[in-house]
Amino acid sequence: MQLDSQWVVGFVDGEGCFHVGINANATMIQKRQVLPEFVVVQHIRDINVLYALKDYFQCGVVRVNHGDRMAYRVRGFDHLRHKIIPFFEKHQLKTKKRVDFERFRDIILLMERKMHLTSEGILKIQKIANQMNTKAYKIVDEPKIESSSY
Amino acid sequence: MQLDSQWVVGFVDGEGCFHVGINANATMIQKRQVLPEFVVVQHIRDINVLYALKDYFQCGVVRVNHGDRMAYRVRGFDHLRHKIIPFFEKHQLKTKKRVDFERFRDIILLMERKMHLTSEGILKIQKIANQMNTKAYKIVDEPKIESSSY
Repeated sequence: MQLDSQWVVGFVDGEGCFHVGINANATMIQKRQVLPEFVVVQHIRDINVLYALKDYFQCGVVRVNHGDRMAYRVRGFDHLRHKIIPFFEKHQLKTKKRVDFERFRDIILLMERKMHLTSEGILKIQKIANQMNTKAYKIVDEPKIESSSY
Repeated sequence: MQLDSQWVVGFVDGEGCFHVGINANATMIQKRQVLPEFVVVQHIRDINVLYALKDYFQCGVVRVNHGDRMAYRVRGFDHLRHKIIPFFEKHQLKTKKRVDFERFRDIILLMERKMHLTSEGILKIQKIANQMNTKAYKIVDEPKIESSSY
């Protein structure tokens, strides 16, 4: 399956997620570990599309996400910094997901400057990560649930 | 906002839905009305993207779907037949949503031949519509709910 750059942007505008986890980790200097990831989840019936994304970006892995859902996931810092970020800087997202991408990029650039190894940097990263409103995605992605809980 | 055809395909692969409703309608010859629609739902924050789709296809409407979700919706038969279907025939969807698009197109072509005004045609359309597994989309679109209900 050959993907076009604009198809990739459109699909990620719909299905992609830029996420930064900050986990407790006793082995780290600041006792916290910053874990940025770019992820696209699909039902297993569309696993071929996830492999096509992997081929397209030449990085990342396709793994089971949960049950019959599969995920294309990029966690490697160099891959995020030198493949994913340049792609979405060159080919701008059209939805408000672009704002979260820009926050994601800001965190990656702070990490490149090793700011995540300082307490000041961790606070800064945490503040940006808190602004990455993944809840808003969930509202978009779960219309039936939203309506049934009204 | 200028859209590229491949961006539109990618976004619809993620967020679009081809749906055929068959409703009871006493005023119709067969007492049932076939209602095909192409729809893309987004959180209101991305209403601009829906208007861009409307501009792109030069048909359809943007309306409230539910709560803070908006929908770009095309229901006009001529618009579906002569704008939406030719577009997705020229620019193939890459996910399995393509199969549902093809079923949707088959129903539109049956309607063009006025088959929906015969009992045999209605049965045929109902059979195809039943195969359009919109449930599968919901599984894909509601990952968190799926996992929490396990």
